[in-house]
Amino acid sequence: MKLSFRQATATDLPLLIKMLADDRLGKQREDSSTPLNKAYIQAFKQIDSDPNNQLILAQSEQQVVGMLQLTFIPYLTHTGSWRCLIEGVRIDRELRGKGIGNQLIQWAIKQARENDCNIVQLTSDKQRPEAISFYESLGFKASHEGFKLVLKTANNA
Amino acid sequence: MKLSFRQATATDLPLLIKMLADDRLGKQREDSSTPLNKAYIQAFKQIDSDPNNQLILAQSEQQVVGMLQLTFIPYLTHTGSWRCLIEGVRIDRELRGKGIGNQLIQWAIKQARENDCNIVQLTSDKQRPEAISFYESLGFKASHEGFKLVLKTANNA
Repeated sequence: MKLSFRQATATDLPLLIKMLADDRLGKQREDSSTPLNKAYIQAFKQIDSDPNNQLILAQSEQQVVGMLQLTFIPYLTHTGSWRCLIEGVRIDRELRGKGIGNQLIQWAIKQARENDCNIVQLTSDKQRPEAISFYESLGFKASHEGFKLVLKTANNA
Repeated sequence: MKLSFRQATATDLPLLIKMLADDRLGKQREDSSTPLNKAYIQAFKQIDSDPNNQLILAQSEQQVVGMLQLTFIPYLTHTGSWRCLIEGVRIDRELRGKGIGNQLIQWAIKQARENDCNIVQLTSDKQRPEAISFYESLGFKASHEGFKLVLKTANNA
């Protein structure tokens, strides 16, 4: 499948929220009601206005088939280095197993290299064994424990 | 021990680099030579100029005893939410076991709450079992695998 990649725009939001909610874990924490929960619109504005955050879509012809968010972070560690953090990876449920995730993550790794990052990192829920195998197949090492402390659950603004 | 917390300034850099390098894993990837490697100065400027990144010091009276970096990240996930990512946690080697790390992380969690974050997250190297027990004792859950893909090793600019 031939894919192209671009930054998301505000008009993509309803489709993106649908994709985030159409997921075993995501459906517990996303709000797929219409009109769109204002918290999503606010979050999109914050992402879109920050040059170190990029909300990326994968398209096949005109159809959005996948998404992720990249965050570029400057650190003192590793002798002063940039890292690229990947989060919120989703592939259209109907189109899984066709290599879209592979192309999307490879594209993200290329962006990280072009932005002079030393490390690409992400965390993957231990409840997603297939995702864990997928990232290992791409060369990622599960060298770290991914700790989360939940302060509050989903916004319902 | 009574601690105070503040953002790091450029004059703190030599001490911070010494602290980052004075570590079993850090010594392999930091450059403690003088004059300071320019990559650290450049990284500090990038951190300091980004309101979503904060390099924080813990002080006991006038002595710097610990450090960490906070990154605040806006996400669409969890119904549009902010997360606080903690990285580069170090405590002065001579002062470990005195509860400094506990106070420092508790302070970071408080910052995350004040900045309306839903989640505080961090990754901890599986080669640091004592750190893993420490974060678990603070209520963090190792619910995720922490994946890293190293694109290049430390800068030697």
